[in-house]
Amino acid sequence: MLHGDNIASMQASLQTLTNINIIEQSRSENPNYLFIKLSLKDAKAQTITFSLTKDNTQMHRFDYQIKQRRAASSQRQGFDNSDVIYLITPDRFVNGDTSNDNHSSMLEKVNRADKDGRHGGDIQGIINSLDYLQELGVTQLWVNPLLENNQQQYSYHGYSTTDHYKIDPRFGSNADYRQLSDAAKDRGIGIIKDIIVNHIGSNHWWMKDIPSQTWINGLASAQAMDTSNLPFTTHRRTTVQDPYSAPSDLSNFVNGWFVDSMPDLNQTDEKLATYLIQNSIWWVEYANLSGIREDTYSYADKAFLAQWSKAIMAEYPKFNIVGEEWTSNPITVSYWQRGKVNQDGYVSHLPSLMDFPLYETMLKAFNSPESWDKGFIELYEMMANDVVYADPTNLVLFEGNHDTNRLFSLLDNNLSRFKMAMAYTLTSNRIPQVFYGTEVLMESPVEGRHDGAVRADFPGGWSSDTSNAITQLGLNSQQLDAQHFVRKLLNFRRHSSAIHNGKLVHYVPKNGIYVYFRANKTETVMVVMNKNHEQTTLDSARFKTQLKDFSTATDVVTGQSQNILNNLKIPANSVLVLSLK
Amino acid sequence: MLHGDNIASMQASLQTLTNINIIEQSRSENPNYLFIKLSLKDAKAQTITFSLTKDNTQMHRFDYQIKQRRAASSQRQGFDNSDVIYLITPDRFVNGDTSNDNHSSMLEKVNRADKDGRHGGDIQGIINSLDYLQELGVTQLWVNPLLENNQQQYSYHGYSTTDHYKIDPRFGSNADYRQLSDAAKDRGIGIIKDIIVNHIGSNHWWMKDIPSQTWINGLASAQAMDTSNLPFTTHRRTTVQDPYSAPSDLSNFVNGWFVDSMPDLNQTDEKLATYLIQNSIWWVEYANLSGIREDTYSYADKAFLAQWSKAIMAEYPKFNIVGEEWTSNPITVSYWQRGKVNQDGYVSHLPSLMDFPLYETMLKAFNSPESWDKGFIELYEMMANDVVYADPTNLVLFEGNHDTNRLFSLLDNNLSRFKMAMAYTLTSNRIPQVFYGTEVLMESPVEGRHDGAVRADFPGGWSSDTSNAITQLGLNSQQLDAQHFVRKLLNFRRHSSAIHNGKLVHYVPKNGIYVYFRANKTETVMVVMNKNHEQTTLDSARFKTQLKDFSTATDVVTGQSQNILNNLKIPANSVLVLSLK
Repeated sequence: MLHGDNIASMQASLQTLTNINIIEQSRSENPNYLFIKLSLKDAKAQTITFSLTKDNTQMHRFDYQIKQRRAASSQRQGFDNSDVIYLITPDRFVNGDTSNDNHSSMLEKVNRADKDGRHGGDIQGIINSLDYLQELGVTQLWVNPLLENNQQQYSYHGYSTTDHYKIDPRFGSNADYRQLSDAAKDRGIGIIKDIIVNHIGSNHWWMKDIPSQTWINGLASAQAMDTSNLPFTTHRRTTVQDPYSAPSDLSNFVNGWFVDSMPDLNQTDEKLATYLIQNSIWWVEYANLSGIREDTYSYADKAFLAQWSKAIMAEYPKFNIVGEEWTSNPITVSYWQRGKVNQDGYVSHLPSLMDFPLYETMLKAFNSPESWDKGFIELYEMMANDVVYADPTNLVLFEGNHDTNRLFSLLDNNLSRFKMAMAYTLTSNRIPQVFYGTEVLMESPVEGRHDGAVRADFPGGWSSDTSNAITQLGLNSQQLDAQHFVRKLLNFRRHSSAIHNGKLVHYVPKNGIYVYFRANKTETVMVVMNKNHEQTTLDSARFKTQLKDFSTATDVVTGQSQNILNNLKIPANSVLVLSLK
Repeated sequence: MLHGDNIASMQASLQTLTNINIIEQSRSENPNYLFIKLSLKDAKAQTITFSLTKDNTQMHRFDYQIKQRRAASSQRQGFDNSDVIYLITPDRFVNGDTSNDNHSSMLEKVNRADKDGRHGGDIQGIINSLDYLQELGVTQLWVNPLLENNQQQYSYHGYSTTDHYKIDPRFGSNADYRQLSDAAKDRGIGIIKDIIVNHIGSNHWWMKDIPSQTWINGLASAQAMDTSNLPFTTHRRTTVQDPYSAPSDLSNFVNGWFVDSMPDLNQTDEKLATYLIQNSIWWVEYANLSGIREDTYSYADKAFLAQWSKAIMAEYPKFNIVGEEWTSNPITVSYWQRGKVNQDGYVSHLPSLMDFPLYETMLKAFNSPESWDKGFIELYEMMANDVVYADPTNLVLFEGNHDTNRLFSLLDNNLSRFKMAMAYTLTSNRIPQVFYGTEVLMESPVEGRHDGAVRADFPGGWSSDTSNAITQLGLNSQQLDAQHFVRKLLNFRRHSSAIHNGKLVHYVPKNGIYVYFRANKTETVMVVMNKNHEQTTLDSARFKTQLKDFSTATDVVTGQSQNILNNLKIPANSVLVLSLK
């Protein structure tokens, strides 16, 4: 895509090159854009020079770099069940470079006193924290969007892209992002990029000169940008797959804007679709990514979504992409996963989704007193719904993210429930994801949305902080306990093939206790959760088919062992992750 | 199955006959049973005579009738979307013959003062009511089990079979049942038999001399009938399809007894399986049935269930069988429907299931004030889950049954909600089922189970009754209004092809109003539900693709018409079923 005054009236040309040709030049109705399609098959890395001519007169000339691809780039391994993903909201994590807190060309300035303002966290802060994250046991980082968000306000969250090819200078540079990726890789940590194909920020440079009449839903041109009559999404996501939904309701969901500062992209515009796909692939190569997290997945055009994920997965067959479909209904989530045979014939190519249904069930299960239909049984019965998924084990189970209230708060500041939730997240047959600061019990209100509080600053990320999650300075005993628990589990999990790929077998919850096993040919892990307020003895006989001839169970957190030939002793209000021998 | 002292030591034989042969005689370890397999292909109707010999001495001799099959029996049409099913609890409907209230050979005597006792309703009472039911618009009768239940108590409900081939004499005779079927058929009404393959009554004659060690789960013989240590079902139905369930949990669900007065049949015993299948087919032929309702479906062995329904559907390809799987989860229900591709490879042959998920959602949807996620939206979003079913339109949607509390009570005695629920049940894309007395607003408590109250006597079914649903004597104005509404809808529905087979299109609920259409090439029906407390005007533009060029909408209940070119007027707190012209 070339942008410039009346550039559509010009012709692009290249010098004669080996394996590099312009195969198509096309235009929209906007005279300021020219779209060039290059053939690059078997091309060598080099700098090429474009000429733009009009009436045989050269008007412009510019260089373009064809870069050398990384070795084995197409065979890169995406995040998988052996990983633990750690989600970072970069503005709120660690301020590693105060010199970039503000930037002359960027509208919003730093103001740490404003919970919805920019606080100064950046890429350097993440780089500085890699040793901590490695030691904690993290193997993948999902960082909320780092692309330029030159918006007047709320720019810190990153979901209002204003340039698809440029890291926001308040986070650092493109080179810094690449440095983060390299430094993380040195520590066995991959980078998952947060990508948004549904919308952009209202200050995106496209909005000053819309590339085509069909680029943005509800706006034919920047001149016609009357936002008073904008269509907003209804958020009624079932319309996409409901066999009975009215076409107008589907359109209202997909084509409506998210909010008035986020113009809704119309991915049925073929040039835009190509742009978005190429941009995603470019970042995989540039930043050596191991995954993508795709925002507000179902809100985009579904044919495009299939095209986008198919293109990326064709380029990188072992890659992984996780989409966000925020609903408590597994049927709705399952529609979007690769391999699902949908009744309407829709074929998806998205390998993974965020497991919102299981996340929401987990909170209910651990918060409810045990009864016939509440408590552990909710989790037990939800797992039976895995039959609707083409590949349930490739879903990402999270204990929280930047849009949910904080786990510890949601669990009533109850440390034993917190440990159950963390143990479940980290030992279930899913890919686990942890939100920054969960390991030190960051808190938030629990009803409604509280973005500023949920995305509060990581303790120790700013030099003036009085407590520090990394040095443990100022952490209270519960925080230290939680952090120790998470670190132990993550580091155990890292080498536990049973947790990575073992078969899950679980037992109907009974007498306040829920038991499940993860087992493969070489390893068996048993997880026991006890809601009783006193130590409980569990008869080994019920679990005979799983306990086999094992005689000893070792708590992977404390290292304590017990003989289990006849029974198991489970402490009050506890969760045990047991390695069986 | 022949039963008699030491009968297993004898040999059965027949005189030489055309197309009738004994092809197998087999035995269990119980010497008192002999199982004979007959070949009857192309046999003519006749009486045949069996001889039982031992050491060449004839010990017994008995006649057996091979009957003439009804013409086109195999092509009988099962209940379908053009039908309305009316459920009757026969002991509680109409006492048409007081002379059979008690029977000398039956343990429990009539006691109308006991809500859990027998009240005296019978088959003659149903026969006497057929004109009323026909005029109401009913086209199918599901009658709770009529087979002999010679139990000391709770015998009225019929779910404790003590003889699989005999109508309970307190309901009438086998001939009476056939007379009911004939008389109903004369009025265009079919009969659906309630069949239980999961369990029997503890006084079943089998229990005095158990046919084999494997006949009853948990009991090897009547002698060993120690009920103190019985396994009871856990009711944890997800174990059947949960990919992670422990085998012992599955066994506990399927092989446990329902209650201690209901021995649990082990359908993996091949002889028992054959007995149950033949018994079901025998009743289809004998009573000229148009359907079967199968009780506690998932509690029986699932391989047997497939075998049973496959055998019946092979015999009657156009027949219908509806199974009971009582859960709010459509995924769990869908597992059992014919045509579903299950992840575990299980192939079901059951055509229909009771739609408990939609029933439960309906109650919530009509009872809740409207909000983002409560009220009509719950119904709207539940319908999107139809994608999990192989054949959602063949599910039976009910407004209540003998196990649920009464609709009017559950809807807070609110007549406008009641009408919404009835209109939904009768115009949705399901096969509707109404519970006796709903049309005159029978009531019950709303929390917990209240079988006696739910299954209260139908007004007018006893000569001493002071009100009468059939003559309308003593009905209050709300009851008359409800009965009129139901009668009008049922009779409209009877001839509405759009409701029988029209495509469903529904609109996201908005401003307290839910709208859906049922339309085929010849007819369009529009249903509008309004929870607002004042008359509401609906802009026709939103529904343009469905309203097409129709100009007039006629309320099928009141007959009133309105012009709909610009808008529709919807009365406060109402549901309109509109025929469009």
